[in-house]
Amino acid sequence: MKKVDICLSPNLLNLYKLEEKIVVIVDILRATSCMVAGLASGVKSITPVASLEECTNLMEQGFIGAGERNGHRVEGFDLGNSPFEYMSEAVREKKVAMTTTNGTQALVLSKGAEQILIGAFLNLSFLANYLKKQNNDVLIVCAGWKGKFCIEDTLFAGALAKELENDFHSEDDSVLAAQTLYEVAQNDMYSYLLQSSHYKRLSHLEGGKDVEFCIQKDKFEVIPVLKGQEIVLWEG
Amino acid sequence: MKKVDICLSPNLLNLYKLEEKIVVIVDILRATSCMVAGLASGVKSITPVASLEECTNLMEQGFIGAGERNGHRVEGFDLGNSPFEYMSEAVREKKVAMTTTNGTQALVLSKGAEQILIGAFLNLSFLANYLKKQNNDVLIVCAGWKGKFCIEDTLFAGALAKELENDFHSEDDSVLAAQTLYEVAQNDMYSYLLQSSHYKRLSHLEGGKDVEFCIQKDKFEVIPVLKGQEIVLWEG
Repeated sequence: MKKVDICLSPNLLNLYKLEEKIVVIVDILRATSCMVAGLASGVKSITPVASLEECTNLMEQGFIGAGERNGHRVEGFDLGNSPFEYMSEAVREKKVAMTTTNGTQALVLSKGAEQILIGAFLNLSFLANYLKKQNNDVLIVCAGWKGKFCIEDTLFAGALAKELENDFHSEDDSVLAAQTLYEVAQNDMYSYLLQSSHYKRLSHLEGGKDVEFCIQKDKFEVIPVLKGQEIVLWEG
Repeated sequence: MKKVDICLSPNLLNLYKLEEKIVVIVDILRATSCMVAGLASGVKSITPVASLEECTNLMEQGFIGAGERNGHRVEGFDLGNSPFEYMSEAVREKKVAMTTTNGTQALVLSKGAEQILIGAFLNLSFLANYLKKQNNDVLIVCAGWKGKFCIEDTLFAGALAKELENDFHSEDDSVLAAQTLYEVAQNDMYSYLLQSSHYKRLSHLEGGKDVEFCIQKDKFEVIPVLKGQEIVLWEG
């Protein structure tokens, strides 16, 4: 039987084997939600980069630049990290270069996996159905917050592991914990997240609107996949 | 208000400041449960060491040697990791040198804290009451399993954080998660742990008896504390 594991923080990634695995990167608030929403809405590709400098370099080559640090858009960049920005007419058919506090770092550290996919509540079921049809073990990598455990990524990991439970086994206590947490929170995720550290960090007004959007399930039937340096839509 | 954090794995310890903090080390199955049970039952001191070799060296100086790796007693050592061994007449008034897969490693990594205490369900309330009376922030360090997240340590961390919630605040999502997990599991912790990876690893018959013992709350009113190289009873 195939195996599913959950890595609760990029700082624990060295404890997991990546070879032959499908890695699902999760940064619900908000990098991977933006990627799903953006690519589903017509963005051509998203190139994740680790530093603001690399992002600026790509902007000089014509990319739209998305730069987020500590939850805010960095001055001089076109986009921040609201999913609504990624769904606007201005980015349709455009290539985006993106650097974020957590999500893009998790992506960079996961190179070495057989395949790297992007997960969010927005594409949960479609992604789960894809994974069930593959022969590979799955490792769900939570982007966390500056290396620390973060609740919204773990809730998504639990939701995805639950979708997979008839087809995958697990030996990892993090799967048990994430599934339990999702079972508790699923009926009112927004209220549950109000208690979280992320919510406490949100000071700007749009925060609540973004969070409500990012915890919607199955809004898009797409799977972003890393191909070379770019994240594009998986096309079967 | 004082702060409580939970570090879910020793591999994440570098993300936390130790200075001026009281660190509570947790390895429910079974290093810290053994320490609490042993010291409460008359063991004179427990010296945690990282390697089997250091443990052997102390045995040659007259220490009782406790060596556990991968859940089993290592050949040539007097004790393994069952709490019942630490409560026997044979170790009363004796100095024990102890090395385990996870718990003693977490201890070694936590040096630099203001004070290092040993926590287990067996001394939960007594420990919580002590922490409430101090002026320091608290960091609960889960020993985990070879660097990975482990459920029983997290359940204890959640239980302790709940005891502290009126006197301490928290900014850490791991506190929210651990408290939620404890709330779910508390009424039948044994059944919940049957789903865990640790239980799947237990092959020997005594395992179940040890687990039942280690999840008992408030059996002992003691606090083991690291003094120099030794863990001894805190004496006010």
